Amino acid sequence: MKVQIVKIGGNVIDEQEQLSCFLDAVASLQTHTILIHGGGKIATEISKQLGIEAQMIEGRRITDAPTLRVVTMVYAGLINKQIVASLQQRGVNAIGLCGADGNIIRSHKRQHPSIDYGFVGDVDEVNASAVQSLLEQGLTPVIAPITHDGKGQLLNTNADTIAAELAMALAVVAEVELCYCFEKAGVLLNVEDEGSLIEQLTPAHYQELRTKGAIAKGMIPKLDNAFRAAERGVQDVRIMHYTSLLEHSGTRISN
Amino acid sequence: MKVQIVKIGGNVIDEQEQLSCFLDAVASLQTHTILIHGGGKIATEISKQLGIEAQMIEGRRITDAPTLRVVTMVYAGLINKQIVASLQQRGVNAIGLCGADGNIIRSHKRQHPSIDYGFVGDVDEVNASAVQSLLEQGLTPVIAPITHDGKGQLLNTNADTIAAELAMALAVVAEVELCYCFEKAGVLLNVEDEGSLIEQLTPAHYQELRTKGAIAKGMIPKLDNAFRAAERGVQDVRIMHYTSLLEHSGTRISN
Repeated sequence: MKVQIVKIGGNVIDEQEQLSCFLDAVASLQTHTILIHGGGKIATEISKQLGIEAQMIEGRRITDAPTLRVVTMVYAGLINKQIVASLQQRGVNAIGLCGADGNIIRSHKRQHPSIDYGFVGDVDEVNASAVQSLLEQGLTPVIAPITHDGKGQLLNTNADTIAAELAMALAVVAEVELCYCFEKAGVLLNVEDEGSLIEQLTPAHYQELRTKGAIAKGMIPKLDNAFRAAERGVQDVRIMHYTSLLEHSGTRISN
Repeated sequence: MKVQIVKIGGNVIDEQEQLSCFLDAVASLQTHTILIHGGGKIATEISKQLGIEAQMIEGRRITDAPTLRVVTMVYAGLINKQIVASLQQRGVNAIGLCGADGNIIRSHKRQHPSIDYGFVGDVDEVNASAVQSLLEQGLTPVIAPITHDGKGQLLNTNADTIAAELAMALAVVAEVELCYCFEKAGVLLNVEDEGSLIEQLTPAHYQELRTKGAIAKGMIPKLDNAFRAAERGVQDVRIMHYTSLLEHSGTRISN
């Protein structure tokens, strides 16, 4: 089995036209596909409207109980179902899930010596055979970044991490391509210059760029996840533009 | 295959303790189970907080675009995933879906000569084989009352109707029990007296009670759906208390 796991970034979700182009590209894929999405600005906007202040530490949203309600609504409800309906319109038999559904992703509440992240989950286990069985039925899972601890608690979980964990779990039974899609051509040497694309990034080169401060802060967790996946048996890991799914272009992450 | 289709009412969803008792009862069922839920007061409360006024005509919520966003968030996101996580906690392998997921329920935007219901869907088709296939994998579908038109539009759909449509579609391939669960013992001759339970309700008796005005207004769409299901091959249709799932008690609807 060949599986393409596609994570789509929040900025693309925020723009109706970009999202539509991206979903056209997803619909044209000939392999089994899994789509993972984050939330973009919609959760922050709705939190504001509901009078909940968004708190961030090190680029991670702090998830208190009211924020967990909002992200569950927005990620697993609004965005997930709109994407599913749009894929169905394009003839893709999408099925929208969070990690609690079919017990596909179990996590635990993050323990940290100094920061209380609130209801944030770190992944313990991906149920690869459940996901594989959905793929075998011709379904395209669309996964919102909410997981559960098996004890009734939903947990907010980083979407890039979910994509990497799913890829690593499926790589045991399938040939997996993991694509982190966003609004740039890939990892750029100069973030202002789309022509400065790094076609292949090795761990050594990544460390060098990181040390120089040449990697944008927001890219670091994504790249850490990408390298972890490449090291742990995912055959093809890429950071790419959201319209390039068919061309296998962008930055290839090597192990 | 034997399937128990259980619709749970909004008042039970609004009370954490009642919902918990109900989910305990669901977890103790020995048959394949499908759970359908509505939304209770939470959608109305969140609409209010977001400055959206809820509009009702003949007991149906008028669904303008902002309201559709809220019900999609609350029904398919918040409530659906909380129920799924709570069932997982009880050892039930629940999977939360709306009608767009796996294309299980296709509908069209309601056409009405005088009332514009907005984004309200009337069911066209239930994909019984997709639902059956999930059941065969040991999954318990938990269905939120949002459907889609296959053209990318999500539509707000009455949960009692979804339960009846699912029951009718599955009755072709399975032995189906359809249970409408709420906070009363069943259909009561006197709504103030739980001892006045009607154990079996025939279409003639229902018409008689309706003519007399003895049926509470809110019960009429539910009972119309129940009778339609009984007429169309659903083997056992009941209106019952939310803790009575195991006893097969309540009011049996006969055809």
